[in-house]
Amino acid sequence: MFEERVGRVLHNMEEMGLEQMIISDPPSVFYLTGRWILPNERLLALYLNKNGNNKLFINKLFTVDGDIGIEKVWFSDTDPACRMIADCTDHEKPLGIDKKMAARFLLELMELGAGSSYKNASECVDGARRIKDGEEKEKMILASRLNDEAMARFRGLIKEGVTELEVAAGMCAIYKELGTEGPSFGPLVSFGANAAIGHHKPDGTVLKDGDCVLFDVGCKKNSYCSDMTRTFFYKSASEKGREVYEIVKKANLTAQAAMKPGMKFCEIDKVARDIITEAGYGPYFTHRLGHCIGIEVHDAGDVSSANQDIVQEGMIFSCEPGIYLPGELGVRIEDLMLITADGAVSLNRDSKEMEIIG
Amino acid sequence: MFEERVGRVLHNMEEMGLEQMIISDPPSVFYLTGRWILPNERLLALYLNKNGNNKLFINKLFTVDGDIGIEKVWFSDTDPACRMIADCTDHEKPLGIDKKMAARFLLELMELGAGSSYKNASECVDGARRIKDGEEKEKMILASRLNDEAMARFRGLIKEGVTELEVAAGMCAIYKELGTEGPSFGPLVSFGANAAIGHHKPDGTVLKDGDCVLFDVGCKKNSYCSDMTRTFFYKSASEKGREVYEIVKKANLTAQAAMKPGMKFCEIDKVARDIITEAGYGPYFTHRLGHCIGIEVHDAGDVSSANQDIVQEGMIFSCEPGIYLPGELGVRIEDLMLITADGAVSLNRDSKEMEIIG
Repeated sequence: MFEERVGRVLHNMEEMGLEQMIISDPPSVFYLTGRWILPNERLLALYLNKNGNNKLFINKLFTVDGDIGIEKVWFSDTDPACRMIADCTDHEKPLGIDKKMAARFLLELMELGAGSSYKNASECVDGARRIKDGEEKEKMILASRLNDEAMARFRGLIKEGVTELEVAAGMCAIYKELGTEGPSFGPLVSFGANAAIGHHKPDGTVLKDGDCVLFDVGCKKNSYCSDMTRTFFYKSASEKGREVYEIVKKANLTAQAAMKPGMKFCEIDKVARDIITEAGYGPYFTHRLGHCIGIEVHDAGDVSSANQDIVQEGMIFSCEPGIYLPGELGVRIEDLMLITADGAVSLNRDSKEMEIIG
Repeated sequence: MFEERVGRVLHNMEEMGLEQMIISDPPSVFYLTGRWILPNERLLALYLNKNGNNKLFINKLFTVDGDIGIEKVWFSDTDPACRMIADCTDHEKPLGIDKKMAARFLLELMELGAGSSYKNASECVDGARRIKDGEEKEKMILASRLNDEAMARFRGLIKEGVTELEVAAGMCAIYKELGTEGPSFGPLVSFGANAAIGHHKPDGTVLKDGDCVLFDVGCKKNSYCSDMTRTFFYKSASEKGREVYEIVKKANLTAQAAMKPGMKFCEIDKVARDIITEAGYGPYFTHRLGHCIGIEVHDAGDVSSANQDIVQEGMIFSCEPGIYLPGELGVRIEDLMLITADGAVSLNRDSKEMEIIG
């Protein structure tokens, strides 16, 4: 167990009026224990209590080597695992639950009266994860440095006659060569009008002259994620493409320059959105400005018009404005930003100047 | 919506005393609607009510093309999705919940008073999925036929100096060549003593003379899964290896011959387990005999000593006895079985005779 991290979770629990909670989400268990346990449909439960009666409930099918500073309680597929947990919880006190616990376990714990009430207490651990400690910052910086190296090489995949799927496959090979654990999400490769489609997955579309080329890509290194988007043009760029590119770049840079601790997330979103809206493209920036990132590509928390939370030193999130013109093109420019004492630094160094390739 | 499937779910709900339920698990939504919607951390909810007031609640980020015979209710990331669902449920009646709904949605629905009580009602849809209809049987047969073809070719991957990881990569390529959607799970390739380790993942282990070679593999075709295990020997087989192989084969064949509707799942497990126990290897058969399979490799329901449920015509599950001798070898032989009116047929035709390769 990382005691300092556990201490922060317990502190957050206290602020929420909780003395006990169950954490079941594997990335959060990894965050606190340093071990990846992927139970699939089976139960995994890290029980925390302010009195120090912490326990990790794990199915015997999985392995957790060595002493990790917490009592391990093993159960088999035929053992009453929820009953074993309920035998350990304080039935007279509210029980915090993390957001992804499967309904079948929660409903069974409720039937067993494991707590006096049940509260979604994910924010206790999500809030701790949102502020990176020194070790995490180093890992995030390394993952993004490797992503920069990858992006430099990805430019070489933009060739006559290539398909989106071929480029995506080439990216996976490059991530492997760079010694990463692979992509942190399926690389998004979109040519031309495909770049205007939200969640477009690489397909057999062939690159053609004048296409924009959108790469939204990231890798994992030491279990931490990177995530970056660059948009290029193949052989030539239309007037509209150039105009849109410069607006998106300005939104990206201006929002980054404005970031500092003490702001609200929604205020950062507004800086970027105002620039795009003033340029007349407001309706074509169809998503939030960014999302928190760390052990997961989408850690809890986002940079959106709805998020009133305060930005704090040590947070890392994406800054990814975009303009999408249906049937025509899409441009998005994304970096990961680390909030510092008096501003923010980008974890990505890859150039954002408009580039025509080929 | 597949009306006949929805009818079976509603029938199961009635037996459980439920007039309404929410299905959120993507494979179950696919089973009922024919559409794959993968919402990741976002909410997806198929609401069924015996009065016909069925609705599909989906985030606007996803696409569901065409008329699928159910009203679609779209919401954005900033809409109060749980409130929208609670506005539609009958607050005076118990509400069924499927087993994987994330705690944060369930706790919010509870706060909103969406039902008079909440019940894990997954079995209503899992029970329907467990009995395959005609179209599903055809798809399962095809997926296993392709898996047979693949296994025939996988034998060619057993070569001097090869590693487990190289064989696994070769398998993925063959599944692609055969026109499948890829493996239904990461192919398990274990050489020698590795075959005795539960959940061993392919690594850099190099094949050597006398090794057993365990392949536990499956593919997806038309969204349905296959799953089969064969164990070979490389260049030679020890006396112990031959003995264990024949015992496992006998357990596999005898259990298959015993299967018929009306039995309990635990009785089938016992047939195989008794053979292995009588041969003196009981403690080395360390898992259940099988699991149900369909849209997921592990559909709900298993062939274990603890399962008192009754086997019914149209069910498909694996029959996979094994003997694992730590530090030495492991043998498992697995087929998928379809329960018929008066017995069972194997969906796999690949030979189970002991084979020494190389």
